[in-house]
Amino acid sequence: MTQSTKKRSKKAGLPPGALVHIGDRLEEKSKITVINYGEEQFSKVEAKTAEECVSLKEKASICWVNVAGIHESETIERIGQIFNLHPLLLEDIMNTDQRPKMESYDGYLFIVLKILFYDEKEKTTAMEQISIVLGTNYVLSFQERENNIFDPLLENLKNGKGRIRKMGADYLVYSLIDMIIDNYFLILEKLGDRVDNLEVQLVTSPKRETLKSIQKLKKEMIFLRRSVWPLREVINSMERGESPLIQSSTYIYLRDIYDHTIQAIDTIETYRDMLSGMLDIYLSSVSYKLNEIMKVLTIVSTIFIPLTFIVGLYGMNFEFMPELKSPWGYPAVLLLMVIVSLSMLYYFKKKKWF
Amino acid sequence: MTQSTKKRSKKAGLPPGALVHIGDRLEEKSKITVINYGEEQFSKVEAKTAEECVSLKEKASICWVNVAGIHESETIERIGQIFNLHPLLLEDIMNTDQRPKMESYDGYLFIVLKILFYDEKEKTTAMEQISIVLGTNYVLSFQERENNIFDPLLENLKNGKGRIRKMGADYLVYSLIDMIIDNYFLILEKLGDRVDNLEVQLVTSPKRETLKSIQKLKKEMIFLRRSVWPLREVINSMERGESPLIQSSTYIYLRDIYDHTIQAIDTIETYRDMLSGMLDIYLSSVSYKLNEIMKVLTIVSTIFIPLTFIVGLYGMNFEFMPELKSPWGYPAVLLLMVIVSLSMLYYFKKKKWF
Amino acid sequence: MTQSTKKRSKKAGLPPGALVHIGDRLEEKSKITVINYGEEQFSKVEAKTAEECVSLKEKASICWVNVAGIHESETIERIGQIFNLHPLLLEDIMNTDQRPKMESYDGYLFIVLKILFYDEKEKTTAMEQISIVLGTNYVLSFQERENNIFDPLLENLKNGKGRIRKMGADYLVYSLIDMIIDNYFLILEKLGDRVDNLEVQLVTSPKRETLKSIQKLKKEMIFLRRSVWPLREVINSMERGESPLIQSSTYIYLRDIYDHTIQAIDTIETYRDMLSGMLDIYLSSVSYKLNEIMKVLTIVSTIFIPLTFIVGLYGMNFEFMPELKSPWGYPAVLLLMVIVSLSMLYYFKKKKWF
Amino acid sequence: MTQSTKKRSKKAGLPPGALVHIGDRLEEKSKITVINYGEEQFSKVEAKTAEECVSLKEKASICWVNVAGIHESETIERIGQIFNLHPLLLEDIMNTDQRPKMESYDGYLFIVLKILFYDEKEKTTAMEQISIVLGTNYVLSFQERENNIFDPLLENLKNGKGRIRKMGADYLVYSLIDMIIDNYFLILEKLGDRVDNLEVQLVTSPKRETLKSIQKLKKEMIFLRRSVWPLREVINSMERGESPLIQSSTYIYLRDIYDHTIQAIDTIETYRDMLSGMLDIYLSSVSYKLNEIMKVLTIVSTIFIPLTFIVGLYGMNFEFMPELKSPWGYPAVLLLMVIVSLSMLYYFKKKKWF
Amino acid sequence: MTQSTKKRSKKAGLPPGALVHIGDRLEEKSKITVINYGEEQFSKVEAKTAEECVSLKEKASICWVNVAGIHESETIERIGQIFNLHPLLLEDIMNTDQRPKMESYDGYLFIVLKILFYDEKEKTTAMEQISIVLGTNYVLSFQERENNIFDPLLENLKNGKGRIRKMGADYLVYSLIDMIIDNYFLILEKLGDRVDNLEVQLVTSPKRETLKSIQKLKKEMIFLRRSVWPLREVINSMERGESPLIQSSTYIYLRDIYDHTIQAIDTIETYRDMLSGMLDIYLSSVSYKLNEIMKVLTIVSTIFIPLTFIVGLYGMNFEFMPELKSPWGYPAVLLLMVIVSLSMLYYFKKKKWF
Repeated sequence: MTQSTKKRSKKAGLPPGALVHIGDRLEEKSKITVINYGEEQFSKVEAKTAEECVSLKEKASICWVNVAGIHESETIERIGQIFNLHPLLLEDIMNTDQRPKMESYDGYLFIVLKILFYDEKEKTTAMEQISIVLGTNYVLSFQERENNIFDPLLENLKNGKGRIRKMGADYLVYSLIDMIIDNYFLILEKLGDRVDNLEVQLVTSPKRETLKSIQKLKKEMIFLRRSVWPLREVINSMERGESPLIQSSTYIYLRDIYDHTIQAIDTIETYRDMLSGMLDIYLSSVSYKLNEIMKVLTIVSTIFIPLTFIVGLYGMNFEFMPELKSPWGYPAVLLLMVIVSLSMLYYFKKKKWF
Repeated sequence: MTQSTKKRSKKAGLPPGALVHIGDRLEEKSKITVINYGEEQFSKVEAKTAEECVSLKEKASICWVNVAGIHESETIERIGQIFNLHPLLLEDIMNTDQRPKMESYDGYLFIVLKILFYDEKEKTTAMEQISIVLGTNYVLSFQERENNIFDPLLENLKNGKGRIRKMGADYLVYSLIDMIIDNYFLILEKLGDRVDNLEVQLVTSPKRETLKSIQKLKKEMIFLRRSVWPLREVINSMERGESPLIQSSTYIYLRDIYDHTIQAIDTIETYRDMLSGMLDIYLSSVSYKLNEIMKVLTIVSTIFIPLTFIVGLYGMNFEFMPELKSPWGYPAVLLLMVIVSLSMLYYFKKKKWF
Repeated sequence: MTQSTKKRSKKAGLPPGALVHIGDRLEEKSKITVINYGEEQFSKVEAKTAEECVSLKEKASICWVNVAGIHESETIERIGQIFNLHPLLLEDIMNTDQRPKMESYDGYLFIVLKILFYDEKEKTTAMEQISIVLGTNYVLSFQERENNIFDPLLENLKNGKGRIRKMGADYLVYSLIDMIIDNYFLILEKLGDRVDNLEVQLVTSPKRETLKSIQKLKKEMIFLRRSVWPLREVINSMERGESPLIQSSTYIYLRDIYDHTIQAIDTIETYRDMLSGMLDIYLSSVSYKLNEIMKVLTIVSTIFIPLTFIVGLYGMNFEFMPELKSPWGYPAVLLLMVIVSLSMLYYFKKKKWF
Repeated sequence: MTQSTKKRSKKAGLPPGALVHIGDRLEEKSKITVINYGEEQFSKVEAKTAEECVSLKEKASICWVNVAGIHESETIERIGQIFNLHPLLLEDIMNTDQRPKMESYDGYLFIVLKILFYDEKEKTTAMEQISIVLGTNYVLSFQERENNIFDPLLENLKNGKGRIRKMGADYLVYSLIDMIIDNYFLILEKLGDRVDNLEVQLVTSPKRETLKSIQKLKKEMIFLRRSVWPLREVINSMERGESPLIQSSTYIYLRDIYDHTIQAIDTIETYRDMLSGMLDIYLSSVSYKLNEIMKVLTIVSTIFIPLTFIVGLYGMNFEFMPELKSPWGYPAVLLLMVIVSLSMLYYFKKKKWF
Repeated sequence: MTQSTKKRSKKAGLPPGALVHIGDRLEEKSKITVINYGEEQFSKVEAKTAEECVSLKEKASICWVNVAGIHESETIERIGQIFNLHPLLLEDIMNTDQRPKMESYDGYLFIVLKILFYDEKEKTTAMEQISIVLGTNYVLSFQERENNIFDPLLENLKNGKGRIRKMGADYLVYSLIDMIIDNYFLILEKLGDRVDNLEVQLVTSPKRETLKSIQKLKKEMIFLRRSVWPLREVINSMERGESPLIQSSTYIYLRDIYDHTIQAIDTIETYRDMLSGMLDIYLSSVSYKLNEIMKVLTIVSTIFIPLTFIVGLYGMNFEFMPELKSPWGYPAVLLLMVIVSLSMLYYFKKKKWF
């Protein structure tokens, strides 16, 4: 995930507003879905070209255009012309290395968010960018690739469940953000499980891999934090009620997702604190083990080194060593050695070394 | 306690306002208690169904409805309809994974707090959520399960002790929060005792378990902090006097519990600082012990290694070793070894190694 | 000092305003001193009961009532009635576990501060609470026990030295706070001496006790900080000039003690920083010593282990070992061993191991 | 890069506004380029002296004077007189030890920024200062030496690509800053690569050089941060719209580079966090390796020390040692030694030491 | 420098405004210099007594009275009476344990700053206090002892260089502060050199003294920071333009020194960061060295311990050891030992231990 900043250099030197795709290159064509809905109606059509959006957009209803795949600059440019979007905004849509933000333009709001995924293959948290444009009666959403996190929302729209068909385009944007934040909690739970597992591992059998896992999780937390923290400001500025595009009846819902964001941030901070504590435990486990090993070495060495000296002593070849001639010499030396080793063991026991 | 965020995923994909219970599943039925009181009267009845509340609520008095058990969505929904509560508020009541907060709705205030318990079985601090709704002349409180922390308050209400029967519904809410915060100090004292015990243990006999206890307490502090910090903002926003539901005569009491909250936060921070210091002490104890062991090993080895060499020297089988033939050889070697070991001991003594 | 939060639990469940003494229980009776002074007069009488205060309070002069001992709830209550004080304020006076604060009530200001002492017996910093009530022409001060930090002030009052007899009750409160803060510097100097001593000890002979002293001082700093930090806000809010009880001519004096407070906070922070640095030095001293010991062990072992092998080699009892028969065998082996040990010493020297 | 503050001392004692060059001394002459452009025109001339600027500056078009080389105080002074610049501003231009800042003077804005380079020779990040003056219809830029980061901009100006020729002088300043910030991302990518490389190195073969590289990168981050952080405030104060020199149509572009700045700061902070984590990994790798070595020593020593004792025992020269005479003595001792070493290996295996 | 708070206790118990000198006692008499200057004139006279100032102060010009030596309370008091200064201000002048601050009194401004010196003897940074009073047409400066940092300024005043003689008293105060801050950079450069030297030392030959130097520098940084940080606020409040004593034409100069202050703070913070990094390097060097030593010990021990066992084995005195009789026994054992040691060396090589 470190590489996230690498791609920007493509744009160095180009005039502002130049449309350059920054992100993973995709092969597939972008897919444009146009959804029209009102209190009594609902239709969902796939547009073949950007131009089709115009004809598909129905009067007197709310139109949601979802673009999956943002690598085709012509498509993005055409949509920009149709909906009269600022070139800088289009540039931001195509640059997936954005911070979550909300910007207010004449006639529409522009919101950039991150969708989190758990990448099963890499066993890590991945993220994609979604850009949302909220205009009068229309909502545009641009995703890096097709995904299904908005499927429950589409289902509700189709069945007319909840109050979504009765509310305006701002409520649709709220619902999209709500889906995205609900998704964060799924990811946070996965992370929470991994943190819990690590904690158990630390206590039962700390290994070098444990440390690497801690560091990897810490790094993931750094990236998660970068995606979630700015969200707070984004929703806060939507809620402050400065834009006429957001009706005051929606404020209460925005306040709700603001709460969820704070909750998510809180959880991330808690995990970070816990991971820091685990590093301490790991390091202390390592020195504890070193201690254990040292103790065994010390006890064995300290007991046998004097004994080895004694046996060496009577291995000397001096001609005049009276002890060697005595029949009690050998048993006496054996006894001496037993006494020496026992008193040493007693000393270590007293010192609580084992 | 890490698992606290796990449950939220149940809600992913549901429309906002959907009533899903997030928390420990309980078997028992919810218990609804309706208390009516005024300057001259007091009655306490248990309602069998949510509907009964309507008939039980008396005119011209203050009505306090306490619901113990929030897992039955129908009950919560019925009470919501009776008191005309917003669906998002009902959703928050049933979701026990909330941050303490205060929200102002048309006609009522909504307050979420945490009650702390000391879980004797798990030897840890547990928490439950309480949601309070303050309306004109009525107060609703929703607890996760029945508990007795409000018993003294009920006693006072019954006996008419203190000024509570003379004051409005806002004073009742104040009293509830006051009880909850007083309870925090009980928990903090228990934690303080454990911190003190750990400190004594560290000095007398630091063990690996001591480290684990420090980490466990630190983790509890993280969770405690999360419950208590936001309280500050909650009470502050009640005191700011923006809601007509809170009379200005109650401000002085709110200021008092605001002080208590700051005091509790202060205590938590102090414990955190102390626990950090204890980790340092523990780690230094470990290296101190390693040092002690190394010193003994060094002294024993360093003294005997040269001696063992000397005895080995005269254990060689060369035919022409004149020392071996001499009658003074053995005593001379013994003397040499005494001198070597004494001079080494002197060196170590001078170096202050023992 | 950890126990400071323990006592609060006595109050759990009691209605607000209940007078419960939280603090060290004293045997002696409270002592009430009534001082009346004006530009031309000064009297100091000891009141036997709280009621006497009324008669002793003289018209047309400033009356200062000092209460030493706050454990008798009846006395506090009576004084409260006489001076018409709010029950919550009386509750705070008796609860010695308060944070420094200033509260504005109708007709009077309430200030809580901490007096610091150096407890010679425990060799630690102790603290007591003082509560001050500033009304029109009167000042009440409540101390935990009798002490003499205000003696110089009384002396000045008696002799009419300085401008104190010409100024109002607010100037008396300023003078009391000034005395208390001046006292902080005495305590900080004592702490500074201990920090300096520790630093010298660290350099000359670091011991395990040194570490414990560092930790003890760090803990004292945590408590000191808790007492001094809030003072900043207290004096700041007095200086902001919102209360009619404080004359604008006193502001310049409050600004002066505000400066002193900042100075005290600065000093505490400096000590904290220095203590953190000392912990690093201590830990590095420990590993330095371990290094020294390891070096000696290594040098001795590494030199003698090969030599011991050589002498062992010629201690073997093979029948066919031609070297053993040669008359030059023994001197040759001795020479070899000298060469081996010298080359090893040279290697260690080159590696700068000693 | 530590030396960056060294040069300032040249100025101590001089009156304010004294023009002293603080920075690397250059041999070459300063090069002054005058560019005039409007919607329909473009000209680029090199001025031989500062005076020539006056004649070269065309009416009814925007004039950009770029000065490469700021070591000639006479040139800077002359330009200052021509454009009527404040002496303090000229002093700042010549002092390359400035923090990025924006200052508003009567009639013009003064902006100081840092350009980052990757110094291939020193393998480190270098920086140069650029000062920009924005007046009505003219822009002055002062660089430490000639460089080519503005070449793409010049190209666009010449070809009339983008909207730059249609916009005012403020848009030119925006474009310059945009180029500089785009350049930051190039540098950040290089740093990112080095961080990634280090991370791989840490995992595969941590060396002492790795630690030094981590520290070197950390130090570079400290300097980078110092250059980029203040930029935030610079652009923010330009965007706040207090200067009539910046047209409101440019605000949207400034908001865009403000975003880029935040992104750059975010990236720097992320790298800092990652480098801190890597230090922990390095230190733990070192103790892990020490552990490994200790384990081998322990196992070998602990197995052979008792064996050596046994063989020493039967090397003693006592006359009365019955075992020595027995034909089973030797095989029995060999067997004993096998049993001892196997049981020790079993013990270590059980302890999971290898 | 720890002792800096010690002196304050002298004042405990004294009424506010009491003049007590807190600082190093000096023997010499204070020296009062009176400088009068205007656009056309300049005179510099030394006053023998404080009273002389009155006669020396000329009309229609700016008068700067510099007092070197603040230990004589009578002198300070007399000057206070002559210029009508507040007693608290005089108290602050004599107390050298002040934080940098600016206070606004009726008719004059009071500024306290720190002058930094490099104490060549103690090889440390020392500081002195300077108090400046800015009135209408006069400036008073009080220094702890005579020094020459204002000499260049006096030179400029005398020669009429720069714009100083044309400007008011506020510009003189600005010039004094400018001199003081320029001086900070001299000190910071010295510190920078020491930091650089330490860094080189760390890489080439880390010693215990290096650690002590790091700690000493860190401590100096703590004190430096305390002197420089508040300056920011001092100059900021001067620049805010609330005092009529400071003309708006001076603001631009104050903004300039505000910049310098930020620059100095930045440098201090950078040094602090670098010193923290150096501590890490030092500690890792220590463990690196320990590792190196351990490795040698391990290799030597691990190779020789088995060999010593083998030679011990054939040193046993059993009668029935067939190997001892064989003529190939000795060469076979020698071969065995070569094989054992070579295979061990191979193992260590593979493990990359040397």
